[in-house]
Amino acid sequence: MQSPPFPAIVQHLTGDRTPRVWSFLISVFGDLAQAPDARISAALLRQISAQIGIRPEAMRVALHRLRKDGWIDSARAGRTSAYFLTDRGRAQSAAASPRIYGTGPGAETAWLAAFNPGQPGAHQDEAGVWLSATLLVSATRPATADAFVTPLGPGTALPDWMTARICDATTVQMAADFARALAGLRPLLDSAPGLTTLETTALRVLLVHGWRRIVLRTPILPDHLFPATWQGPVCRDGVADLLARYPKRPLAELEAARTALPCG
Amino acid sequence: MQSPPFPAIVQHLTGDRTPRVWSFLISVFGDLAQAPDARISAALLRQISAQIGIRPEAMRVALHRLRKDGWIDSARAGRTSAYFLTDRGRAQSAAASPRIYGTGPGAETAWLAAFNPGQPGAHQDEAGVWLSATLLVSATRPATADAFVTPLGPGTALPDWMTARICDATTVQMAADFARALAGLRPLLDSAPGLTTLETTALRVLLVHGWRRIVLRTPILPDHLFPATWQGPVCRDGVADLLARYPKRPLAELEAARTALPCG
Repeated sequence: MQSPPFPAIVQHLTGDRTPRVWSFLISVFGDLAQAPDARISAALLRQISAQIGIRPEAMRVALHRLRKDGWIDSARAGRTSAYFLTDRGRAQSAAASPRIYGTGPGAETAWLAAFNPGQPGAHQDEAGVWLSATLLVSATRPATADAFVTPLGPGTALPDWMTARICDATTVQMAADFARALAGLRPLLDSAPGLTTLETTALRVLLVHGWRRIVLRTPILPDHLFPATWQGPVCRDGVADLLARYPKRPLAELEAARTALPCG
Repeated sequence: MQSPPFPAIVQHLTGDRTPRVWSFLISVFGDLAQAPDARISAALLRQISAQIGIRPEAMRVALHRLRKDGWIDSARAGRTSAYFLTDRGRAQSAAASPRIYGTGPGAETAWLAAFNPGQPGAHQDEAGVWLSATLLVSATRPATADAFVTPLGPGTALPDWMTARICDATTVQMAADFARALAGLRPLLDSAPGLTTLETTALRVLLVHGWRRIVLRTPILPDHLFPATWQGPVCRDGVADLLARYPKRPLAELEAARTALPCG
């Protein structure tokens, strides 16, 4: 059996929607270069992006945007440039990482709080999902005597209108699509044992990127409070499994792999 | 020590507010004449009412009103009239009796139900107390998948805005006043051992009447869901205790006691 070429794997994972380049680059930096001293050469960025079909011009535009937004910065390194996360970009990457790479639910427990309808908005700073102007679901128990607060333990089933507020139909659909892509990806990968270092790196980033787009749209709440058709846990497990199968390589190794390529 | 005259006991129990006569008469019929064949002579009604200071003319007006409302009816009995509950009056008396004479809370358990704010009013026929347009407390578990429903067990404390909806400040104050009156009534009664049959009957009806006015203003819910200062259980226990101390006498005995009086 012939190995599928890597572009077929990419096509399977991204479908008709090539990632937005700046967003994909955020996943690149988040996965490969979160360490304070981490630097990625322009050439390595270009080669990783090329693996998933991003053209150099599109990448240059995206890098410019991310730099303008204060997410990344660059420094000259010999004849070329090296890119790195700013403190702000690093902080935001670090904040998102537990959610993206976490192997368990965002929270184990949650509480439903009913606030006084006579004082709407009085507690709007509480963290969580507001189901109505006075009804909150939160992974943090609201510490106020003004509210009726009840735990939403593992056995708790919420009505559809509540779960739809916790996770909207678009996100549910995205997770279903991604779960289906992940399921189809395994046999493809099993028949493609010889992926290169840069290919597996691009694959890692694509997985992180796909899951990041979904998980960051959802609140930090236990899985059982999501809609019945929510495939989030399936995606989370599938991504974690594949990331373990293709562990992250040191940047130096990636830079070396880059220069070894004829197009480097 | 001299026994206090019965009017002092009545005065202690009713304070400045002599009961509305028609309402007091409903308590008379409810306590003494709920049986289908029960009849009360006009003379007995007059004498019981006289014990608490109701004048004959006021009683005649009230009897007229209750008859016009279809609550009672009358029949000639020799030279006088006998009064009795209509089917409707009897049904309403019977419906209220478990609440008035019950020796335990109206309910042991309750549920809080949160309905979809996107469909206000969709479940307004559910029994219970609506805390807001979409938030219900009920002693009956709402049987709909549209709502989030959680039990409000014995340990559940509700915030003040919820308990104030379940039982308003006026009713809380009425119960506090009645509880205080009951507490002061005991020493008075202990020093008045020789009450007549018609006096203890008037006392029974006054107790029933005082408690009826309060308990029928409250929803059928467990005591622990009422405001912290709610004295309802104290009133309920006090009334039950005194009703047991002064058991109901058969109507025939009351009619006999009536004719034995010089003013009969």
